[in-house]
Amino acid sequence: MRNVDRKDVPAVTVPRLALYLRKLRELRARGVDRVSSKDLAEAIDLNAAQIRKDFSYFGEFGTRGVGYEVDSLIDVITHSLGLHRTWNVAIIGAGLLGTALARYRGFGEQGFHLVAMFDSSATVIGASYGEGRVRSVAELEEFCAEERVDIAVVTVPASEAQATIERLVAAGVRAILNFAPVRVHTPDGVLVRQVDLSSELMALSFHLDRESD
Amino acid sequence: MRNVDRKDVPAVTVPRLALYLRKLRELRARGVDRVSSKDLAEAIDLNAAQIRKDFSYFGEFGTRGVGYEVDSLIDVITHSLGLHRTWNVAIIGAGLLGTALARYRGFGEQGFHLVAMFDSSATVIGASYGEGRVRSVAELEEFCAEERVDIAVVTVPASEAQATIERLVAAGVRAILNFAPVRVHTPDGVLVRQVDLSSELMALSFHLDRESD
Repeated sequence: MRNVDRKDVPAVTVPRLALYLRKLRELRARGVDRVSSKDLAEAIDLNAAQIRKDFSYFGEFGTRGVGYEVDSLIDVITHSLGLHRTWNVAIIGAGLLGTALARYRGFGEQGFHLVAMFDSSATVIGASYGEGRVRSVAELEEFCAEERVDIAVVTVPASEAQATIERLVAAGVRAILNFAPVRVHTPDGVLVRQVDLSSELMALSFHLDRESD
Repeated sequence: MRNVDRKDVPAVTVPRLALYLRKLRELRARGVDRVSSKDLAEAIDLNAAQIRKDFSYFGEFGTRGVGYEVDSLIDVITHSLGLHRTWNVAIIGAGLLGTALARYRGFGEQGFHLVAMFDSSATVIGASYGEGRVRSVAELEEFCAEERVDIAVVTVPASEAQATIERLVAAGVRAILNFAPVRVHTPDGVLVRQVDLSSELMALSFHLDRESD
């Protein structure tokens, strides 16, 4: 197996890598050592050729007729996704969604370490949710200068999202998960992923309305 | 303006329609009556030609040099997305995410009416979150037979998602927002939208790791 140069792996494969990783961990937990692209394809409802193509970015380490080693695949995908490192996460906005996310088990399990929460409301500053003690958003820049914040999860109201994200970017944050229902602008090198619940609900409404015509 | 036949509007436009609707409501709240495709394009960072193409599905009602009537656009997009109707929503899984979603303001604002929550844990059955009183998941089929459930929001653990969604589909639910980090299979005619927070975090990790090489 040659060394992986992560720059070779295109960003479009990331959602599939996440899917592979989840299924492979499940297989390992069940004591499975090896898996063929065909069996993996059936388990996650993808095309076996697509899976072989994705895995080819990691070099030649599947053996025809024997399949892939589950452990090796997990290692290489974990590295490829940067999950061998620990990333510090801050949540901006300690409302209902922010506090629920603070207690979201998926953070810790994946190497994401919640280091702080921020809010502007005096009624929540000082409270603790899971690992996250709520600080005043006025301390944001000072905190980022002292402690590394890799990822910011933004759950502020839509009207405050752009300004909040500009402060985060100025403080050195390069990866943002934005739950505020608004498109935000960021400079090159900053990745914003958007989770828009209201847009998801609209897609469901569109589907139901059309089906009932 | 000719009547809108929603079947004409392709599903791929839905995320953009949601975006237009949000911005148009903002404009109306600020007292703006008319908007050109160019101004709208600038406001939401899209191409004006794309916007004109999307609006052309609604018939000819923009006037060159005068722009689109904000009110008419809001009406036609609201209808196109099925948001002129009220949709009954049930949340399955009254954990931290489920209960946060139960209090999510976006539901009520958009005509989504939370009618029930379901959970299998005796410790939460009977509790109330926002509009949602938690029932035993054993009552799911009975409830769906008596009250219409249009949309199910699924926040159960990954291992329970497929079985839960099969029960919902058998009970007549045709639209599902799935937060469980697993792909689920449903028959034709059932739309499942997936919100996968762990996959979003992995995309951010991938980006950060690559940037830091």
